[in-house]
Order: sequence, then structure tokens, then C-alpha cells
Amino acid sequence: MAEIHGLAVIGAGLVGGSLCLAARAAGVEHVGVTDRDPGVRTRGRQLGLADQVHDTVQDTVADADLVVVAVPAEAVAEVVVAVAEAAPSHAVVTDVASLKTAITLEVESRLRHLGRRHPALAPGSALARYIGGHPMAGSERSGPEAADATLFQAATWVLTPTAASDDRALRTLSGFLRRIGARVLVLPPQRHDELVAVVSHLPQLVASALAELAAEQAETTGEALLAVAGGGFRDTTRIAASDPGLWSGILRGNRASVLEALAAYRRRLDELHEALATEDWEVVEELLRRASRARRRLVPKAAAARLVDLVVALEDRPGALAEATTALGEAGVNVEDLAMRHAEEGSRGALLVRIEAAASDRAVAALERGGLHVHVEDIDPGAGNHA
Amino acid sequence: MAEIHGLAVIGAGLVGGSLCLAARAAGVEHVGVTDRDPGVRTRGRQLGLADQVHDTVQDTVADADLVVVAVPAEAVAEVVVAVAEAAPSHAVVTDVASLKTAITLEVESRLRHLGRRHPALAPGSALARYIGGHPMAGSERSGPEAADATLFQAATWVLTPTAASDDRALRTLSGFLRRIGARVLVLPPQRHDELVAVVSHLPQLVASALAELAAEQAETTGEALLAVAGGGFRDTTRIAASDPGLWSGILRGNRASVLEALAAYRRRLDELHEALATEDWEVVEELLRRASRARRRLVPKAAAARLVDLVVALEDRPGALAEATTALGEAGVNVEDLAMRHAEEGSRGALLVRIEAAASDRAVAALERGGLHVHVEDIDPGAGNHA
Repeated sequence: MAEIHGLAVIGAGLVGGSLCLAARAAGVEHVGVTDRDPGVRTRGRQLGLADQVHDTVQDTVADADLVVVAVPAEAVAEVVVAVAEAAPSHAVVTDVASLKTAITLEVESRLRHLGRRHPALAPGSALARYIGGHPMAGSERSGPEAADATLFQAATWVLTPTAASDDRALRTLSGFLRRIGARVLVLPPQRHDELVAVVSHLPQLVASALAELAAEQAETTGEALLAVAGGGFRDTTRIAASDPGLWSGILRGNRASVLEALAAYRRRLDELHEALATEDWEVVEELLRRASRARRRLVPKAAAARLVDLVVALEDRPGALAEATTALGEAGVNVEDLAMRHAEEGSRGALLVRIEAAASDRAVAALERGGLHVHVEDIDPGAGNHA
Repeated sequence: MAEIHGLAVIGAGLVGGSLCLAARAAGVEHVGVTDRDPGVRTRGRQLGLADQVHDTVQDTVADADLVVVAVPAEAVAEVVVAVAEAAPSHAVVTDVASLKTAITLEVESRLRHLGRRHPALAPGSALARYIGGHPMAGSERSGPEAADATLFQAATWVLTPTAASDDRALRTLSGFLRRIGARVLVLPPQRHDELVAVVSHLPQLVASALAELAAEQAETTGEALLAVAGGGFRDTTRIAASDPGLWSGILRGNRASVLEALAAYRRRLDELHEALATEDWEVVEELLRRASRARRRLVPKAAAARLVDLVVALEDRPGALAEATTALGEAGVNVEDLAMRHAEEGSRGALLVRIEAAASDRAVAALERGGLHVHVEDIDPGAGNHA
């Protein structure tokens, strides 16, 4: 496996910038970056993202062993071709787009064409050294200011080589990604897109349809619907608040796999509806049982930790909130989620703080030491009185 | 509105016990409680839950102005009748069961029958003074040891009077609940059950079906599915891990409303599937947009002043939250509402702090002095003035 000495990053946004910082922290000798936006390049220089912030793709990749194309999906294929023309003949090239099938086909088609036009590039060689990728890490923020050397720490980085890919290129790329702390997962491009359809894109549709149905109900019930909605509803619809434009683009890009996942999901709801309608409780219970087992098994331990809500009685004054969160921070309690509940009359309310159940004794003690009144609510609707 | 001087609570579990403590804290002169379990009565006495822990329902309700029946749903109707026979003729009676339609029908039928058998009880009077209720508060713990005087603070307490209910009884009960800090919401029993079907029972089915579909996929993909599943999948399926037996019971109890909610939900998914299949992106985007607005609006808003959301980038570590809220508290900024926004993938996110627009410059300055990254988001005008 060849060690990476020179890294070139095209695109100095959140992912590209973070990659530069992570590579420098991991001791990569030379890290160069560029961005087509001159303003971003200037900010990248001010921020000291890389050893050098170049003005052109050509300058950036000139001495690179690995080139990461971290540009928007629609620009990936074009930039990969420009990189292949300019980079050293041993350089490995990857991208970070969140869907792989269409991009891989387009890149491979363009690189085959390039091989025919420029025999000097050794036919098939640029093609063999391109391996698609998708880091499963992100942030609400964007731009070089959001770059963070630890963004990929323990994050899964999917690589999607094809039959045309070179094994040595895959090993080189994987080795680099592990060096910056990522967990590498190799999948065929099509399989990657099918999986994200099930665990990312379908959940978005499921949550959006639920939020929208509740909104329609709220038109006639107003306050009432919100008042009876508990932690289960908040959790299940949280991602519905995501950016509609962004999601529309994702759904377009993965339409075939999303349709397949949605069809399978609708079949399950059809079965459930039929069982409820005919009072076939065995079928209902069996699905709930399988789902409960699945949820416990599927989600990795750290994420599956049982969560509880601390309900902290609050007075409505500046500082009350800080007292509560400071007490939690000092006690080393990590807050998973937050919400406020307002009293109907007067100025009283409550702060809902979602934490791991394992930390709840510690958290309650810290809050009570601070003179706050708190009780613990299980967010599993079955366990409390939310049902 | 008659003030409550004597409160009787039947059932000294979490809800009943908390109600005793809350009533004493609110200055109710006499609070009596009983439980059919002698062990619970003994523990209730040791804990000092009430002024008196009685051995019988009759002794408990003898001097009560208000009787709260806090026993399991299947025992409510029988206990309410026993209470009606023994309580003073002015006493208001309520229960705390989580579904209202069936219980209300059964209680009313039994109280009508009682009125015919005991004309001395003034026909219709016991019936008029029974008002069903459902406090939307719970805890992972149960039993008298879990009782907490602040359990109902800022919690919604649904009351479900019918045509047979007395207005004065409703006012008396509402007044008491507000006195212990709860937010009273009056709904017809049927409407209550319809609403919880949409915001509690349907989400359970939606989450369970999604977890079960993912589990089937995982049979062929194993590790890979887990690796690509991010925060969105975790949130959306969290409640699928709930107790299947308990949920089967809830679904049986609210079958008609659940079927209706599920049918409406399936229609939405049908439309979405059709739009994706025919590439009608306008329809897809419109649903995503409505859902996104809806989810943001589902955060209740307290004041009429123009509000903005501060979006504060947060690292997922203890203390980050405290830094933000401390900075705001020190700057004298009052927080109207709080929420957390999670990154699409990975564990990082942002804190959304809703404040009055007039305070936003001061708030941003305070946060930035504390080294935090923040930007100001206007609340969607379409969603802003939700009552």
C-alpha cells in the first residue's frame, strides 16, 4: 500500500476543508487545496486550511498522490476529468458525492473517452485509479469556516469501486482514510444507493408525510394537537424539518432505489392496515415484536442507548436556562436534545433535556444541587403515561 | 368557581402520588389517598404522600370536593361508581386513563344506572360531576416512591367533558389543575382519542414498519446497513423499540381512530409514490415544503412579539450547550424556546434558540464573544404566529 505524501483537495467547503485539516493533523507532508470561488480561496488562506491554497486545479494536483474532489454532485464528473488530465499518472482520484450510481457511470464514461483521446494517459489507467466515495459525516454548517479536523473521526466512509477499479488504488485510498480516523466500508455503487434509500431517504419521506398529516389535523385542532404530541412524535418527525430543496435533489438522484424502498414500506403498512381492520392481533403484535427486536439490534450500542427526558421546572427569567445547562455541563452530561414546555398561566415552564438514561442519576443530582426541581420522563411512550 | 379544600386520590402510584404532593404544595387543606394494595398504602404513609392514607375508598372520599381516580384503565369505571356512591353530593370526579371514548361511555352508562338505583343521589348528578381526564405527563419510574410534586408543572392535562357534564364541575376541576401548574386542554373524548391516534399511535406504526423493513434489508447486507444508517434513521425508528405487548393493547383500545389515521397516512404515501413514479417534482417538493414548515411550527410559541431563531453551531460534548445558554443568560436575553437540530449524519448539530427579534444583536454579540458560531434565522412568516 502506497503511503500518501501529497494530498490535493478540490473544493474548500465543509468536507474539503475538514479533509485538509484532518490530513495535516495526520501528518501528510503536503496538502494543497483550491476552490472555484475566489472568496473561498481567500478565506481558506486566512484560515490556514492547507499548506497551499492554489488558484487552479492544475496547480493543486501537480504533485498529488491522492486527489479528493469535494465539489457539488453536478460538477463531480467534469472536475474528475480535469483532475485526471493534470494529475501525476499514479494519483488516485475520489469524490464525496452522496449518491454513487449515476456519478460513477458518468465518470467512467468520461474517463474511457479521455483514455481514447489521450493515449499518453495510458488507456484505462485514470479509470482504474478513480474510486467513488461517500463520507457519512456532515454538519449543519458549511463553507471553509466550518472545517473541522475531527469531522471524519469514527465516521463511516463508503468507497464504491467497480470492476474497472485498481486494487492498489483502493488500498491506497482506504489506508489514507483510516489514517484520518474514518471507518472504510466498500460497497458496489448500486448497493450504496439502495442502502441510503432505505435508511436515509425513505425515513425522510416517512417523517415528512407524518409531519404533513399532523399539520393538516392541526388546522382544525390548533393548539390541541401540539399539546398532546409527546417525545415519540418529536423524534419520528424531527428530520421533516430538513431543507426541502436539498431533499428534492437527493430524491431525484436516487429515484429508482427510493421508489423501491417506498413500495416495500407501503406493502408493510398495507399489511398492518389489513390486520388492524380485521382485528388480526397476532399479525399486529408479530410486526411490533419484529420491529422492536430489529430496532434494538440494528442501531449500534452507543446510539441505541436508552434515552430519558429530564423535566426541569423553570422560571421564565434570563439565566434560569443557563443554570440548568451549566449544572449539566459541569456534571459531564451530554445533551441529546432539548425542548421547552410552557405553562398555560403565569411565567412557569419546563425545560425538557434528553440524555442517556445511564446519566440520569448524575444529571438529577447536579440539577438538584443547583436548587432546581427535576423529574425523569421515559421517552418510550409505553413506559410513561404518554400513550 | 368552587375552590378545592379536600382532595381524594384513589390509587397511590406515580400519577396519584404526584397529584397528592402537588396538591399539598399548592396549599390544598386536606389531601387523602388510598390504594387497593396494602403494601402501597404502607409505603405511602412512610413517604408522607398525603395528610392521611386511608384503607378504603369510602373513608378517602368522605370529605372530598374533588376525587381523582388514578387506577389502571380497566378498573376506572368500577372505581368511579364506588366513588360516586360514597362521595359528598357536590364532589367532582375525574380519572387519568390514556384513552377516553370507551371509558367515558362505560362510566356514563354505569352512573346513569346508579342514578336509577339510588334516586337519593339525585338522578344525573353523579354523571354531571364526572369529567374524564388524561394528564400528558409520565416518568420512567412507577409506584409511590416515584411521586413528584412537579410532575404536572407545564404539562398538558386533557379534560373530556360530554353533553352530560356540569359546567361548574369543569370549572372547579380546571381551576384545581391550573393551581398545580398544569395546562388544561378541553376536548371531546372522541377528539382526544383521534388526536393521540395521529400524534402517538400512528408514529408508533410508522416507526415500527420502518425498523422492520430495515431489519429485512439487514439480513442480506449485515454490517453495511448499520454503517450507513445515520441520525435520521435513529430518530425516526427510536420508538419502534417500545414494548410490543403494551402497544398492541393501546392499538386495540383506539382501533377505529388508529385505522382512520393510518388510512390518511397511506393516502399521503400513495400520492408521494405516484409523484416520484411520474417525476412530478412539484408535488414532491410541495409536500416536503409543507412538512418542513409544519415540523418547525410544531414548536409552540409563547409571546406575540416578533421572534427569531439563533442557530448556534454546537459540538457534541458536555458543556457546549452551557456555554451558549450562559452567554445568553449573562447578556440578559430571555429564551422563548429551544430546540436542537441534528446533522443529517454524524452526531453534531446546532442549537436553535428562539428569542425576541429586538434582542438578537445583543444575543449574537454575546455568543460570538464566547467563541461560538451563530447565525440568525427568521421564523417562517407562514409559521410565525402560531398560537
